[in-house]
Amino acid sequence: MTKYVYDFTEGDRSMADLLGGKGANLAEMTRLGLPVPPGFTITTQACRAYMAEGREPPGMGPQVGTALAATESRSRRRFGDPENPLLVSVRSGARFSMPGMMETVLNIGLNDETLPGLAKATGDERFAWDSYRRLIQMFGKTVLGIEGEKFEHILDASKKSAGVKTDAELSTAQLQDLVTSFKGVVEEATGEEFPQGVFAQLDLAIRAVFNSWNTERAKIYRRQERIPDDLGTAVNICTMVFGNRGTESGTGVAFTRDPATGATGAYGDWLPDAQGEDVVAGIRNTYSLNDLHDMMPKVHPELMRTMDILEAHYKDLCDIEFTIENGTLWMLQTRVGKRTAAAAFRIAVQLVDEGLITLDEALERVTGDQLSQLMFPRFDSTAERDLIAKGIAASPGAAVGVIAFTSAEAIEYSKAGTACILVRRETNPDDLAGMIASVGILTVRGGKTSHAAVVARGMGKTAVCGADALSLDLAAGLVTTGDGRKFNRGEVISIDGTSGDVFAGEVPVSPSPISRYFDGEIKKGDAEFDDLVAAVDRLVTHADQVRKMSVMANADTGEDAARARRMGACGIGLARTEHMFLGERRLLVERLILSETESEREDVYAELLPQQIVDFESLLAEMDGFPVIIRLIDPPLHEFLPDRTELAVKVALAKERGQIDQYDVELLAAVEHHHEQNPMLGMRGVRLGLELPGLFETQIRAVGIATLNRIKAGGNPKPEIMVPLVATVAEFEPVRKLAETILAELSAANGVELQMPIGTMIELPRAALTAHRIARAADFFSFGTNDLTQTTWGFSRDDVESEFIGDYLERGILGTSPFESIDVFGVGELVRIASEKGRSTKPDLSLGVCGEHGGDPASIHFFASVGLNYVSCSPFRVPIARLEVGRAALNNVTVSESR
Amino acid sequence: MTKYVYDFTEGDRSMADLLGGKGANLAEMTRLGLPVPPGFTITTQACRAYMAEGREPPGMGPQVGTALAATESRSRRRFGDPENPLLVSVRSGARFSMPGMMETVLNIGLNDETLPGLAKATGDERFAWDSYRRLIQMFGKTVLGIEGEKFEHILDASKKSAGVKTDAELSTAQLQDLVTSFKGVVEEATGEEFPQGVFAQLDLAIRAVFNSWNTERAKIYRRQERIPDDLGTAVNICTMVFGNRGTESGTGVAFTRDPATGATGAYGDWLPDAQGEDVVAGIRNTYSLNDLHDMMPKVHPELMRTMDILEAHYKDLCDIEFTIENGTLWMLQTRVGKRTAAAAFRIAVQLVDEGLITLDEALERVTGDQLSQLMFPRFDSTAERDLIAKGIAASPGAAVGVIAFTSAEAIEYSKAGTACILVRRETNPDDLAGMIASVGILTVRGGKTSHAAVVARGMGKTAVCGADALSLDLAAGLVTTGDGRKFNRGEVISIDGTSGDVFAGEVPVSPSPISRYFDGEIKKGDAEFDDLVAAVDRLVTHADQVRKMSVMANADTGEDAARARRMGACGIGLARTEHMFLGERRLLVERLILSETESEREDVYAELLPQQIVDFESLLAEMDGFPVIIRLIDPPLHEFLPDRTELAVKVALAKERGQIDQYDVELLAAVEHHHEQNPMLGMRGVRLGLELPGLFETQIRAVGIATLNRIKAGGNPKPEIMVPLVATVAEFEPVRKLAETILAELSAANGVELQMPIGTMIELPRAALTAHRIARAADFFSFGTNDLTQTTWGFSRDDVESEFIGDYLERGILGTSPFESIDVFGVGELVRIASEKGRSTKPDLSLGVCGEHGGDPASIHFFASVGLNYVSCSPFRVPIARLEVGRAALNNVTVSESR
Repeated sequence: MTKYVYDFTEGDRSMADLLGGKGANLAEMTRLGLPVPPGFTITTQACRAYMAEGREPPGMGPQVGTALAATESRSRRRFGDPENPLLVSVRSGARFSMPGMMETVLNIGLNDETLPGLAKATGDERFAWDSYRRLIQMFGKTVLGIEGEKFEHILDASKKSAGVKTDAELSTAQLQDLVTSFKGVVEEATGEEFPQGVFAQLDLAIRAVFNSWNTERAKIYRRQERIPDDLGTAVNICTMVFGNRGTESGTGVAFTRDPATGATGAYGDWLPDAQGEDVVAGIRNTYSLNDLHDMMPKVHPELMRTMDILEAHYKDLCDIEFTIENGTLWMLQTRVGKRTAAAAFRIAVQLVDEGLITLDEALERVTGDQLSQLMFPRFDSTAERDLIAKGIAASPGAAVGVIAFTSAEAIEYSKAGTACILVRRETNPDDLAGMIASVGILTVRGGKTSHAAVVARGMGKTAVCGADALSLDLAAGLVTTGDGRKFNRGEVISIDGTSGDVFAGEVPVSPSPISRYFDGEIKKGDAEFDDLVAAVDRLVTHADQVRKMSVMANADTGEDAARARRMGACGIGLARTEHMFLGERRLLVERLILSETESEREDVYAELLPQQIVDFESLLAEMDGFPVIIRLIDPPLHEFLPDRTELAVKVALAKERGQIDQYDVELLAAVEHHHEQNPMLGMRGVRLGLELPGLFETQIRAVGIATLNRIKAGGNPKPEIMVPLVATVAEFEPVRKLAETILAELSAANGVELQMPIGTMIELPRAALTAHRIARAADFFSFGTNDLTQTTWGFSRDDVESEFIGDYLERGILGTSPFESIDVFGVGELVRIASEKGRSTKPDLSLGVCGEHGGDPASIHFFASVGLNYVSCSPFRVPIARLEVGRAALNNVTVSESR
Repeated sequence: MTKYVYDFTEGDRSMADLLGGKGANLAEMTRLGLPVPPGFTITTQACRAYMAEGREPPGMGPQVGTALAATESRSRRRFGDPENPLLVSVRSGARFSMPGMMETVLNIGLNDETLPGLAKATGDERFAWDSYRRLIQMFGKTVLGIEGEKFEHILDASKKSAGVKTDAELSTAQLQDLVTSFKGVVEEATGEEFPQGVFAQLDLAIRAVFNSWNTERAKIYRRQERIPDDLGTAVNICTMVFGNRGTESGTGVAFTRDPATGATGAYGDWLPDAQGEDVVAGIRNTYSLNDLHDMMPKVHPELMRTMDILEAHYKDLCDIEFTIENGTLWMLQTRVGKRTAAAAFRIAVQLVDEGLITLDEALERVTGDQLSQLMFPRFDSTAERDLIAKGIAASPGAAVGVIAFTSAEAIEYSKAGTACILVRRETNPDDLAGMIASVGILTVRGGKTSHAAVVARGMGKTAVCGADALSLDLAAGLVTTGDGRKFNRGEVISIDGTSGDVFAGEVPVSPSPISRYFDGEIKKGDAEFDDLVAAVDRLVTHADQVRKMSVMANADTGEDAARARRMGACGIGLARTEHMFLGERRLLVERLILSETESEREDVYAELLPQQIVDFESLLAEMDGFPVIIRLIDPPLHEFLPDRTELAVKVALAKERGQIDQYDVELLAAVEHHHEQNPMLGMRGVRLGLELPGLFETQIRAVGIATLNRIKAGGNPKPEIMVPLVATVAEFEPVRKLAETILAELSAANGVELQMPIGTMIELPRAALTAHRIARAADFFSFGTNDLTQTTWGFSRDDVESEFIGDYLERGILGTSPFESIDVFGVGELVRIASEKGRSTKPDLSLGVCGEHGGDPASIHFFASVGLNYVSCSPFRVPIARLEVGRAALNNVTVSESR
């Protein structure tokens, strides 16, 4: 018989796949002897069986019964006992944390019969009635699917008629009335009375948790966080403890270090006389741990000691949920806590210094995504700012955008390409889509642990929370500041997630210190080389030491090359020569296309040659001593020509007006002649090189001469020539032969042995599939995963990104855009096939990647697993790639635990 | 030590890979006791070693010496013997016949010293001097690379000054003068005297043959015929026998049956007192075998007997080369002869009836390419024709095109998309590129065995040869007929390769009898059911019996479906629903795109639904009882809209003129909105279906209702629904779900169980690579190899075919266009991967192909090797596919021996 139920005393933290994160950690805390209320966990396997069959798997029910009996025995109360009833909470707990996504029901086991017993046992009738009305309200909403609004409305009316402001001020009689009203709501909505059977309550609650795995909001969250849909959730049934039993009770969340900054010392929010979600929901303003020290001097040290035990045990920042019931501390949850990027770096290095972990382990604790967040620009501190509000710095960064008040508005702005900031009283899971669509989030209520803050940090989005001087008028579509200034929907504001400041209008941004450090502007010893910069420096330097792949950069100018080198690139993995034909040189291309004779073409090449020599010399000089891979021109030439439709209209109108411009007419003829239905799949890359005599020759000659010039100047140039868009080795060979001929000729004429690797892009499926043939002739492969993604999927990036990728992501057809992170099953499979086939012909074949995926953390780990030699990415992403290739070398690292 | 040399007595016909076709068959004839002059063969392996190393492999030289000694001994003469010298011919002989492509040198062994010996031994001094001048001329041109023109010029001058017309009339003294002059040509051109050493002559000639493997014309020929470049050629060294020793001598070629028609009885051309290439070159008008009977009554029966022995031995049509020296018959070559398509079918069936081969073997003797030639239309016999010349029917078919006089002109016309007919005095290998570029070939001189005729038959091109009433004036660019009519370059003519007729202007064409037979217009018992139709009928019927793959057709209308069924298709493998949106219905698509509300869209669908029902009912009715695979709409909708540029110009001009058409303005906005950079990779196929609500739904509903209607009408409809352009199973699943929902709803409403397979196209690399996932949800795969070729190669067919595929073929970068015949290494590899992965999930998954490759013989054999269940092709190609799937089932068949 499959074991579907584990008592808290049976599991441990290694069992998160089966018990979920919450269940595994409850078991671990139980094992550590920490004060966890008795309880048990129903496994994720049971949930998966439930989802597959539509009902609980056979055997689960009896096992729940047995575990419940054990819980009764340990808590010395019985479930449904009218005298001294056991109440339980029923909480979801998946493998990966999905904050606020899934269901929780408290106070299960309370009914008309057990209520007096609870009142008696606690000596608090008001408390018993308050617990009952909470059960009906929560059960009604969560398990029975009744609109929460219906209960809230009655509760508000009750407080109004009683003339009180908070729930806590309601009297027992008023609570009894509420229970009656709430029961009526249930009966009206469901046609049946509120379930009085305690086992029925329990069963329904368990099923509700199972079902909550597949709610729309949970699915969206998982897509966003790349959590597989088929994991399922565990269910934790735990003896109820009550934080709402008066001033000696309370409930809260805490972190063993500050999750926002990484500062040492515990940090937490709590509320006295409160239950469950009150703290996280951000409805009431919370108290600090210092307040706890003052208000409950006996509990505070116990909490501190418990947190010390947890941190030493987990060797990492932990976050916890706790409840104090009449002065007794209970631990309801712990986990390795989420943190900001800055905190992640600081904490990782602190833990090394504290002797808890090694530098390798520290490297595993930080991610390229986090480093990337730290490199975001910040608001320029010298610029004029118009401060309109202050809130809590909930998720760092600087965001500028127009105000959107709803998810729908945010999505609309996003689709129109307008950056927006979602401004809400507080957020809840329904706002998720809007948060994804925004560049930043601003809330009026809630703290660092509110929904908005947690989710924004997870997404790496800037957020300011609890800016409570602001008041919203959704109907009028405006927000009013403390001093009465009004801002309408669509007006620009700027929010600083590091300081909590909110500004009117657009505040100019300046680069982050981390970015400036990588760019060489901040050096060890400078005042600005603070503990964060030091932590990043230490971990990236360590990554450089352990890495197995090299990091190169994509750079097309000397300036780019210099920056890439400062950022730590060991060469240029892709110099796109077509970028050297922009601006004034565009005219050269026009002339080339309009050339009708060989001699006209030769004239163009004669002008082009010295310019390209200068281009290449500059790259080789800046990257002296490092390889510089120069790709021959790739795009179709007509990309340099004017738009066909615009030109046709211009010519037609000119003709109509009798003002014909002969050059335009000829240009239009050329544009028409060269027009392609699908230029992505047309005359470009090596095809262009083979069909247009002289073009590749000129570029290759320029590489050769630039190299000679650098050698003569005493440099150590290491150029490599790369041929784009090869589909068959038969396309590559003639270009290789051409290059060898030119280089041999230059060598002979200059008495210098000019030799350089000649390789190819692998950016077409056919090149990947025939890589063993291509490797016979090519010295290296560079995977062009952008183009490879386009052809493998049949997606034109220009077209599909604007048309339907977004919708595919929302609908879950795509988990992530294949242009952002490599599609392992399709494009990745071709990379793997090509690597194996290429190396079967030439075991020491150099393999790299120069698409944008080269700078994407998830993709880098895939490339490492295939055994590529290098990644090449934009200069700005070089530090991120350096960190990730180091992490990838520690082969027990997965990209990010939450994905 | 590797054996590089085989005496004719050592080999046999199974050794063609090593000895080449000619050498293997010379050995076989020697084994049969037929009169082959003594000699030996240097292997293709020696040639490959020579090509790799640039010199003869070690050991080859001594082996040649040994073999030469054996030849001397058998021919009772010695090489270089001044008294009675052995002369030898040195001829190329590759694995696959490459007529006229490679080198031959005759009379090797003749020099100033051995000449008197030859004169004495033959008692014919004039003959000896004629042989000597031929040697110097041929050796000079072939081995030393001197322009042939230089010798011809001197020869012509000599004849002129002697007042004679033919070489045969030149006197001994005149030939002696010629030898002196020819020696002068050699010395002037090479700086050295004509080589007098007989072993030097032999070595140089052997090397010349080796080198001739890699001449430009040989490479072009191999590309055209798909012969691998790395086979190399063998070299045959054979005792010279002389057909030019007077009236009792002669030389000729013959066939055991008529290679043009397949008629039984030997057929040949010969010339008395002639040597070597005179017959094949088509310079002199030849004699028939009947003439031989009259002129050499002793030799004729020996030749006939020899040919009977060969045909019985080879069990096939043989062609031979023979020489008669002073009344003695010598066999210089035999091989299984090339033949026209009609001859191939007739002969195959004759051989079955003669008990020489089985029907299976007969099926192996014919190809889909040949059947395809027989299905070409012919000139309409009832149309008016303006006969301007008559020639020999050299290669069947009907061709209409403009006159081109040179290869260059033909290529130019071809590039411009103009069909042309190459008109030449005679052709030689230099004309090959022009022949490829033409639709037909017309020559003034030469017969059925001339270069033009042989090559044209090989290519399946129409040719008329020896139309000797025509005279060409290349300088003036015109051809004059017998009665003085003049036709200029670029004027249209029509040639009939079946009758030899040449017509002025365009003659209308009518379908071939074979085509009419397959279309059901000619039936067994009809007068037109002649022996050719009977032969085709018998072999195609046999193919149907042995085949393992099914043949379906691509058809979009009831008419197409009916034709496909007549042609023998067992269902529709692809019904392209987009073809149902042309004509008036294009407006529906325009309305759909311009729709701004759901209700506007619904109106369009309401109109579309009944029309699609009629479409599908018609297909299902015509294919009753057979599967009909209906593909949901595939192309981007904006393909139905006007061209962006044209519309923009129209709107701009209208605006300029103050005549704005609001509909055009809106249409332009929609066109702009939907414009895509690369529509091939954009919003089409399943993407369109997922993003445009209602479209797929309407089509699926129409399929369901059409099926219900057919069931109600007593039919046996077998529809299948196919989803296009799927890249991930996540795109397929929602469409499957939609279809299942609609069909379930229709089933319930009609009380009929509507079930049909729902499958997908595999036409993107990613679909192939993730086929195991897609197979979880799909009932069948149909490979769309057109699109798969486009994405695998990164080729947009529309663009690259006009831009560079032709050039790639000419340069040998491509052996064949991947759009014509499946690219086995790239696209084929994906088909193989997808088949294996798909069947790993679902072992009985139905696999088929519906791209144009489904009707291509070479591709069909590949698909058979992968184990596909069916091919689907255009109705007209169904018979060809039927023949080829039958041949593919006989697994010892390769596509075509010559490829």
